Amino acid sequence: MAIEGKDEIHSGRIRLGMVGGGSGAFIGGVHRMASRLDDHFTFVAGALSSTPEKALASGKELGLDPDRTYGSYEEMAEKEAAREDGIEVVAIVTPNHMHFEPAKAFLEKGIHVICDKPVTWNLADAKALKATADKANALFILTHNYTGYPMIRQARAMIANGDLGDIRLIHAEYPQDWLTEPAEREGSKQAEWRTDPKRSGAGGAIGDIGTHALNLALFASGAELESLSADLDTFVEGRQLDDNAHIMLRFKEKNGVRPKGMLWASQVAPGFENGLQLKICGTKGGVQWMQENPNYLWFTPFGEPKRLLSRNGADALEAATRVSRIPAGHPEGYLEGFANLYCEAARAIRAFRDGKTPEDVVYPTIEDGVIGLAFIEACVASSNADGKWIRLDV
Amino acid sequence: MAIEGKDEIHSGRIRLGMVGGGSGAFIGGVHRMASRLDDHFTFVAGALSSTPEKALASGKELGLDPDRTYGSYEEMAEKEAAREDGIEVVAIVTPNHMHFEPAKAFLEKGIHVICDKPVTWNLADAKALKATADKANALFILTHNYTGYPMIRQARAMIANGDLGDIRLIHAEYPQDWLTEPAEREGSKQAEWRTDPKRSGAGGAIGDIGTHALNLALFASGAELESLSADLDTFVEGRQLDDNAHIMLRFKEKNGVRPKGMLWASQVAPGFENGLQLKICGTKGGVQWMQENPNYLWFTPFGEPKRLLSRNGADALEAATRVSRIPAGHPEGYLEGFANLYCEAARAIRAFRDGKTPEDVVYPTIEDGVIGLAFIEACVASSNADGKWIRLDV
Amino acid sequence: MAIEGKDEIHSGRIRLGMVGGGSGAFIGGVHRMASRLDDHFTFVAGALSSTPEKALASGKELGLDPDRTYGSYEEMAEKEAAREDGIEVVAIVTPNHMHFEPAKAFLEKGIHVICDKPVTWNLADAKALKATADKANALFILTHNYTGYPMIRQARAMIANGDLGDIRLIHAEYPQDWLTEPAEREGSKQAEWRTDPKRSGAGGAIGDIGTHALNLALFASGAELESLSADLDTFVEGRQLDDNAHIMLRFKEKNGVRPKGMLWASQVAPGFENGLQLKICGTKGGVQWMQENPNYLWFTPFGEPKRLLSRNGADALEAATRVSRIPAGHPEGYLEGFANLYCEAARAIRAFRDGKTPEDVVYPTIEDGVIGLAFIEACVASSNADGKWIRLDV
Amino acid sequence: MAIEGKDEIHSGRIRLGMVGGGSGAFIGGVHRMASRLDDHFTFVAGALSSTPEKALASGKELGLDPDRTYGSYEEMAEKEAAREDGIEVVAIVTPNHMHFEPAKAFLEKGIHVICDKPVTWNLADAKALKATADKANALFILTHNYTGYPMIRQARAMIANGDLGDIRLIHAEYPQDWLTEPAEREGSKQAEWRTDPKRSGAGGAIGDIGTHALNLALFASGAELESLSADLDTFVEGRQLDDNAHIMLRFKEKNGVRPKGMLWASQVAPGFENGLQLKICGTKGGVQWMQENPNYLWFTPFGEPKRLLSRNGADALEAATRVSRIPAGHPEGYLEGFANLYCEAARAIRAFRDGKTPEDVVYPTIEDGVIGLAFIEACVASSNADGKWIRLDV
Repeated sequence: MAIEGKDEIHSGRIRLGMVGGGSGAFIGGVHRMASRLDDHFTFVAGALSSTPEKALASGKELGLDPDRTYGSYEEMAEKEAAREDGIEVVAIVTPNHMHFEPAKAFLEKGIHVICDKPVTWNLADAKALKATADKANALFILTHNYTGYPMIRQARAMIANGDLGDIRLIHAEYPQDWLTEPAEREGSKQAEWRTDPKRSGAGGAIGDIGTHALNLALFASGAELESLSADLDTFVEGRQLDDNAHIMLRFKEKNGVRPKGMLWASQVAPGFENGLQLKICGTKGGVQWMQENPNYLWFTPFGEPKRLLSRNGADALEAATRVSRIPAGHPEGYLEGFANLYCEAARAIRAFRDGKTPEDVVYPTIEDGVIGLAFIEACVASSNADGKWIRLDV
Repeated sequence: MAIEGKDEIHSGRIRLGMVGGGSGAFIGGVHRMASRLDDHFTFVAGALSSTPEKALASGKELGLDPDRTYGSYEEMAEKEAAREDGIEVVAIVTPNHMHFEPAKAFLEKGIHVICDKPVTWNLADAKALKATADKANALFILTHNYTGYPMIRQARAMIANGDLGDIRLIHAEYPQDWLTEPAEREGSKQAEWRTDPKRSGAGGAIGDIGTHALNLALFASGAELESLSADLDTFVEGRQLDDNAHIMLRFKEKNGVRPKGMLWASQVAPGFENGLQLKICGTKGGVQWMQENPNYLWFTPFGEPKRLLSRNGADALEAATRVSRIPAGHPEGYLEGFANLYCEAARAIRAFRDGKTPEDVVYPTIEDGVIGLAFIEACVASSNADGKWIRLDV
Repeated sequence: MAIEGKDEIHSGRIRLGMVGGGSGAFIGGVHRMASRLDDHFTFVAGALSSTPEKALASGKELGLDPDRTYGSYEEMAEKEAAREDGIEVVAIVTPNHMHFEPAKAFLEKGIHVICDKPVTWNLADAKALKATADKANALFILTHNYTGYPMIRQARAMIANGDLGDIRLIHAEYPQDWLTEPAEREGSKQAEWRTDPKRSGAGGAIGDIGTHALNLALFASGAELESLSADLDTFVEGRQLDDNAHIMLRFKEKNGVRPKGMLWASQVAPGFENGLQLKICGTKGGVQWMQENPNYLWFTPFGEPKRLLSRNGADALEAATRVSRIPAGHPEGYLEGFANLYCEAARAIRAFRDGKTPEDVVYPTIEDGVIGLAFIEACVASSNADGKWIRLDV
Repeated sequence: MAIEGKDEIHSGRIRLGMVGGGSGAFIGGVHRMASRLDDHFTFVAGALSSTPEKALASGKELGLDPDRTYGSYEEMAEKEAAREDGIEVVAIVTPNHMHFEPAKAFLEKGIHVICDKPVTWNLADAKALKATADKANALFILTHNYTGYPMIRQARAMIANGDLGDIRLIHAEYPQDWLTEPAEREGSKQAEWRTDPKRSGAGGAIGDIGTHALNLALFASGAELESLSADLDTFVEGRQLDDNAHIMLRFKEKNGVRPKGMLWASQVAPGFENGLQLKICGTKGGVQWMQENPNYLWFTPFGEPKRLLSRNGADALEAATRVSRIPAGHPEGYLEGFANLYCEAARAIRAFRDGKTPEDVVYPTIEDGVIGLAFIEACVASSNADGKWIRLDV
């Protein structure tokens, strides 16, 4: 082992609750693993299911005190806010249509919120939630978890440092294959709600993964999206939402250069499991990153050989090493990236306790959530208008 | 070595002439290497430069008989057509604006033409050349050389066989970085004419490499392009043609499925040398191919593990092995792919001599050339109309 | 997300203590993260340092009750064994020379032991510890953590199923570069003890990483090592232990085939961060695995295309999916692999509580530890005898 | 295209003859393609088969003058030496047992020899041929063709420049899978002679591919082999020669450092088509090269990020660019690498005509051939002596 390990910070674990995430859910378990990894949190309360019995059973299974296993988020918000040892932060891991009300409820009680993406079911709600969050005495963290990957932080820092010069091109693609056939009619719960507009909102692939791709592109590049032209498709017969999206992007001018981009989100692309990929090119160099092998970042200074930067390896910047745990060559993965957002949340919450704003904490917020919903609605509007360029309504 | 070698066919070498390709040219030398590799041709005449002294010097350098080193293509067409041992085929390797006239001249003399792409300077010329070629007693071969790669032939055959099911998605990208800075003002001859509309035509990156990417996508997928929406940029100040193009594609419906696609062509993308890449997905599977490591084709039957097909390796189809020379694991490259078009040309010319149409010979023709120019003009029109979808005029 | 998530098992967290792993240690933190990830354990006691003040400070930092922050492992073994809520298992994460005594002490108290590798400072101690463990009313788990990687489990299961036929070739390599220069004289604590024979034992690279490579090769292939021929080197002047090892291997005959192999362990190989790699070939096929991108396993059935098997993806076997948490395409890493051993330990300990032997729990044990030390000593003996083949003394 | 093309040199084509390489042969066709690619040679005479009718038929097929299609190499040497326009160089592409006599015959006639490897059937012959070559008024070029790859030249030049510091480690591996089953009993001519000691000599895999791997390691590293310890196996029942070899290497001390290495050659390794690979590490950096993707060289200066050097790309040295034809990103392959040796031969022959020694021409010679045979015999001797270290007899 070449380096000394990074270790946990334990100045009092933060009390965490959860809305959603009962048995059979996928992302709830991910949140819990992410919250445990670095020991900043202790999971103490939950409204884990809209079915009371299931909520109770799930709470028991997860080792919660039955008194703190609630039948509804309203009850949980009420009671936890009233306890001296009540939760300080709640993770909302329900389908999209169930984000807004609980998020609002907890924020209004002064309880911090860690919320899944897309932040709400539609843009109006996202803006309303932003208004709530802006007034609230609490933090709002949006789990665009791919921003937690160290080499994404590395790319962001390098771009901010000017290592790529002025940014010209931003290409994001996020192909998956799991909805190539109508899995939603073959018993997959994950497929069911993601293809159901009542639960997902106006976006299928664009909502579920397109927002991730966009968020990551903006996060890493520092660019601001101005407008887009989209061509959405539903390839699987009978499906109600898009399962493939082709999008052209225009960003706001910066230093006299207006970056352009493309975004491809697909859930019907055999050969791709979770193929999120980012390519950013500037006047002085380019980077490339692939989620499926996330510990590496290709960096090419124009006119020089390609370099393969490695997490925690040579030329790693502080922005990347501070969210790394183990030496280069020892791969960290999806859960560590997710956990990095929980670490950032913990740092922010501890600073908040002390009335401070932490300097170097970086996580997606309600602003990113509004952009995500504006993106979804612009995609739908553009596609319906045969690809007309639509400005983002943010 | 695992397999017996494929060898040359020598039933009389075919007499080859060349227009363009004198000293300092790039692609002329490529054509000559490609023509020599499999010993089907003998290079005997040339109008190698528009400057007579340079033409003569280049001819001498290349070992041509001074009597057959011409000062102009007109003279060459005239005199070679009159010789009993005159050239049977001519390779036209000049810049784009110098394709139409010579091609027309040789076709009208009944001399076969192997021509560089894009086929002409504009669409009207391409259509006119098609009319000439249709009437001519000669073949027309367009060197969209990437169609010569064995694993592209493999992909094409698999798709034609239905191994991917109905095609839904066709993604082509062709990023390069060599025009990131204004090389055309720093002495690069290759950059000069490629960024000069008088010589290149209406397209910069879309003409030089976008047409390659499109041609390859159509060739492999068997799809027909219906319309496109484009966003062209010129990132380098003062440059007169596009150096980056983002394009969305719609193909003609087939078996009830209308494929969609994206195409990215860029010459200002640091990190990419010659990054032509193709991804095609259907209802039953997907393929992925990368020009920079061309001996491999990823193939994923939906629901099965990814397979890495190797040129001349297991599961290689006849369509690929017939254009392979050496065993799997012994890489063939760009020149071999290019030479495969010369082999196809040789087969076609020999069959033509005998008044036959060869059954299995596959190469791009004037029809592909017309599509290429229609693509360039549609891109420009769409981009000028803020991305309006434009139908291909073919 | 294509699959429903795997979740935690919480039928009572297991009480965990730790010997070593105070501030500045690397592997202690890894053990703690691994123990937390799946929520099977609760960390309640520690003898974290041989320096009492440091032990206390580290305990405080890690949130331990000061009453259970001990100044020595002896005290900890004594007191924890006496408590009703005493630890059920102890993780021993000290340098090699400090494994034997604490392991023995806890085993004799009936406390399960999770111990770092190599298991002891020399072979005699390993055998003595095996005798202790065989008699003890407690389990012994050796953290050859790379055996926890799902795709290693996949390879092992495939080979056991006969998918590769009879095994002929086993190649393991483990190059690193971090000791290319004398880091032990430049302040690296990790380097100091690893190059110090008093703390590490007779092996440098062969002990630190060679034992990992061998263990993994044996684990995956199911083969038994019979003898070896070694050529050890110390390239960095003044270093007291080997920093590079070349080893040829002979395995025991099985089904009439005697597998052969090679093993390379190096800490002076620039270009390699943690390049553990495994190649196993049989009469019917071969596999290849690389630690730095561990979610994939190459599998080539002889005469068929290479397949890239993905963790939790198509063709994943139960042996691999049961140690996976998240869908294919969502990378798991080193910590998850390490945590898999903690999960296996948890299953074994729970079964042990119930007086049962769990059927499908797989982890390295004291037997593997004895093999590791026998390997180290055979390497040294062979190298000293100019590469004479030495039989393993196990 | 980013660079101006390299073109052919045509100061009079060199007259080439061939011994062996008739219909159905593999390597003869490779030599002919290699000789044609850059237009330095004209193929005019052959003794293509030991069967006169086959020789004649093959000559006809290849377009040779029937007068110069000989029934034996003796006749060919005699008659061609007597012609004013006789061949200047002969390529000997027969199985190993048929190299010595023809090579000797042509050298003694003052005709240059390009000869396949291993140079002879045994070491005694190799030494005898060296004696002949040393006295001859002719050049001897040995087609260890992998030395023609530009990125191998790049590695060699970088190492000679000191970019890696003092070399410590040299690892070569050359796994193939095509003899996993007894192909020699299933009709493969290539397999037949390669597994027949009467034709191949004492080495199976070590002779056919082990000599390539060793030659490449020595060529790139500049090191000299001192001794080796080998463990040879014949895994396929009934086969008469080794089909797998594990070898440890010791090189001569240089600057106080004695490099060590390992070499693996196998023809029974499913998963590997032609997996020649080289890793060289020094005190200041390391390189890695893989034949199956030969246009790239990994270079890691110790303590810096890995760099992927590209043929003809950034940081390419003159030693590599002078054997490159086309721009970076346009892959060259096995045939181009082979052709580079023919180019070197052409340069050397032209200089020889003028009584000069060309300065920068680099190709393997009879000295390398002697080393190859000494390697084969040392491997056999060591393996027979249970891995005893054997000094190379050169």
